[in-house]
Amino acid sequence: MSNQTRIAVLGGGSWATAIVKMLSENLETIGWYMRSIYAIEHIKRNKHNPSYLSSAELHPEQLDLSEDINHIIENYDVLIFAIPSAFLNAELEKLTTSLENKVIFSAIKGIVPESGLIVGEHFHSLYNIPYENIGVISGPCHAEEVAMERLSYLTLACQDEKKAKKLSKAIAGRYIKTKISDDIIGTEYAAMLKNIYAIAAGIAHGLGYGDNFQAVLMSNGIREMKRFIKKIHKMKRNINNSAYLGDLLVTGYSTFSRNRMFGNMIGKGYTVKSAMLEMSMVAEGYYATKSAYKINQKNKAKTPIIDAVYNVLYDKKEAKDEFLKLTNRLD
Amino acid sequence: MSNQTRIAVLGGGSWATAIVKMLSENLETIGWYMRSIYAIEHIKRNKHNPSYLSSAELHPEQLDLSEDINHIIENYDVLIFAIPSAFLNAELEKLTTSLENKVIFSAIKGIVPESGLIVGEHFHSLYNIPYENIGVISGPCHAEEVAMERLSYLTLACQDEKKAKKLSKAIAGRYIKTKISDDIIGTEYAAMLKNIYAIAAGIAHGLGYGDNFQAVLMSNGIREMKRFIKKIHKMKRNINNSAYLGDLLVTGYSTFSRNRMFGNMIGKGYTVKSAMLEMSMVAEGYYATKSAYKINQKNKAKTPIIDAVYNVLYDKKEAKDEFLKLTNRLD
Repeated sequence: MSNQTRIAVLGGGSWATAIVKMLSENLETIGWYMRSIYAIEHIKRNKHNPSYLSSAELHPEQLDLSEDINHIIENYDVLIFAIPSAFLNAELEKLTTSLENKVIFSAIKGIVPESGLIVGEHFHSLYNIPYENIGVISGPCHAEEVAMERLSYLTLACQDEKKAKKLSKAIAGRYIKTKISDDIIGTEYAAMLKNIYAIAAGIAHGLGYGDNFQAVLMSNGIREMKRFIKKIHKMKRNINNSAYLGDLLVTGYSTFSRNRMFGNMIGKGYTVKSAMLEMSMVAEGYYATKSAYKINQKNKAKTPIIDAVYNVLYDKKEAKDEFLKLTNRLD
Repeated sequence: MSNQTRIAVLGGGSWATAIVKMLSENLETIGWYMRSIYAIEHIKRNKHNPSYLSSAELHPEQLDLSEDINHIIENYDVLIFAIPSAFLNAELEKLTTSLENKVIFSAIKGIVPESGLIVGEHFHSLYNIPYENIGVISGPCHAEEVAMERLSYLTLACQDEKKAKKLSKAIAGRYIKTKISDDIIGTEYAAMLKNIYAIAAGIAHGLGYGDNFQAVLMSNGIREMKRFIKKIHKMKRNINNSAYLGDLLVTGYSTFSRNRMFGNMIGKGYTVKSAMLEMSMVAEGYYATKSAYKINQKNKAKTPIIDAVYNVLYDKKEAKDEFLKLTNRLD
C-alpha cells in the first residue's frame, strides 16, 4: 500500500475492531475514530478494546486514536465506516469537515433509519459522494473469528476497481483472503437482506421448526434475495458467491446472530417490543425489514419471507399463523 | 392414491422407516421389506423399529412386513429403495422376480460401489429399467425430524410427471410437503455430492477452521456442484432449489451427519482407516468421493473441493496441507 493512502476506521464496535486488527497487519498507521474516550484510553493502556472483541490484541503504537470524527476525516483518505446504521446519521451530523475526494467504504449492514437508504446510497444522495468513491466491505465474517485469526474471506466492492484493489491489499493477510467486485448495490443489499432471513430463521426456530425447514428457508431465502436485488440493480452476478450466499449462511446459521436471537424470542412468544427491551438493543434486521418491504411494494419481486417477517414485526400478525402461511409459499 | 397402485419400501434403516411413517398417513397398506426377522417381529409386537428411528410409532396393521425381497417385489408396483448403496447390490442379487413394469424410486444417496453408478443408472444399465420408470426421492430431510413430525420438504423427481405426482400424493401430509421435478440425474448426483461436501466441512472443522470458512466452503460447494452436474446432464435447473442447495445445507451444517463426523475425525488426525474402524461403518461420501473424482477426470469441471477430499482419502495427502492449498482455490 503506498504511503500516500491513509486509511481510517470509524466506529468502536466488534466489526470496527476486527477491521483495525486486519489493517494492523499491513499498515504502519491506522486512523481510528470512536466516541468513547474511556475506550480509547483503555486501548492505549491495555492493548484491547474494553467492550468489544476484547480478545483481539491491538497495537496502540500503530493507532491514531481519536474521539474527534473531524480530525480523523481531515487526516485520512480512505474512510471505513463501521458504525451501526442506527447511529450513523447522528455521527455524520457532527461533521464540519468536507467528504469531498474521500473514498468511503461501508462496513455497515443495513439501512440508515433516517433516510431509509442503504449506506452507499445515503452517502451518495446526502453527501454528493460519487459512486466511484463509494465501496462496500462484506463477509461472510463474524468479527469474533477474526479475533481468533480464523481464516475468513472478504469481498471489497467498488465501481472503481483500483480502489477496491488498494483496500483489498491493505486488508488481505495471513488469515484474511479478499476478493474484489464491482457490484456495490447488490453486495450492500445482500448484507442488509440477510439480517431479515436471520430473523426469519430465528422465528422458525422459536416456533419449533427444525433443521429440515431451516435448509428450505435458506434455499428459498437466496432465491428471494436474487429476485429482490435484480429488481433494484440488474446485472450479471452469481448470487452463490461468498458475498451473497456465504454471507446469508454465516448469519442465518449463527446462533450468536442478534437478528436470529431477536427472531427466536418472537417465535417463542415475546412481543416485538418486549424482545427489543430484553435485548436492550435493536437488531439491524428490524429496520431492514420495514425498508425492504417498502422498496418491494414498488418493485413487486416475489418475497414471501420478507412479507412474513414484516407482517409479524410491523403488522401485529401472530408469528405462528404467519409462518404457517409462509410454509405454503416456499418449496 | 388409487387402490391399484401398491407401494412398498425396501430397507430397514432410519430413512426407510421415515418413509414408511409418511406413507402410513395416507395408505391403507404398505409393503415393507427388511432383512432382519428380529426387527420385523419387534415392529409387529412393539410398534417401532428396534434399531433405527425408534421414536417413530408404526402401525403394524397397515404394514405388509416381509423378510423376503421377492415376495415384496412381486406384490407391489412402486418400489422405494432405501437400502444403503453399499448393500444394494447384495440385496439385488437375491432377486428371482422380474422388475419389469415396476416403478423404482431411489431414496438412496450415493454410488453403488460394485458398478460405480448412481442408483438410477444402476437400475437402468443392469436391470433394463427404462428411465421413465425410475425416480428419486430427495430432501433436505433428516429422518429424525420426520419421526418428530417436524415440517420437511421432499422432492420427487421422475421423467414421467404422472409417476412423480402419484408418489407425491402418497407422501405429502401434515408435516411433509412435496414438489415434483423431472431432473432425476441432477437430483441424484446432488444427493451424492453433498456427502463429499459434508466430509469437507468435517475435515475443515477438525482442522480448526471456523464458521466464516464453513460459509465460504458451502458457497463454493454449491457452485462446484452446479458445474459438476452440468457436465453430466445439461438442462435448465435452479441449483438453489431445495433438492440441491437445501439438501447440501441440511447435511453440510449437520453435526449428526456421518459424513461430516468422518471428515472431522480425519481433520483431527485420524487416518482414513482408523476413522472407518472407529465409526464401525463406511460413510457414504467415502465412495462418492472416488466416484465423483473419476467421473470428473473425464468431464473436467473445476472441482477443487472434491479434488482435495479425494487427495486426502485416496492419495494419502495430509489433510492440513491439502486444505491449505484448497483455501487458495476458493473465493
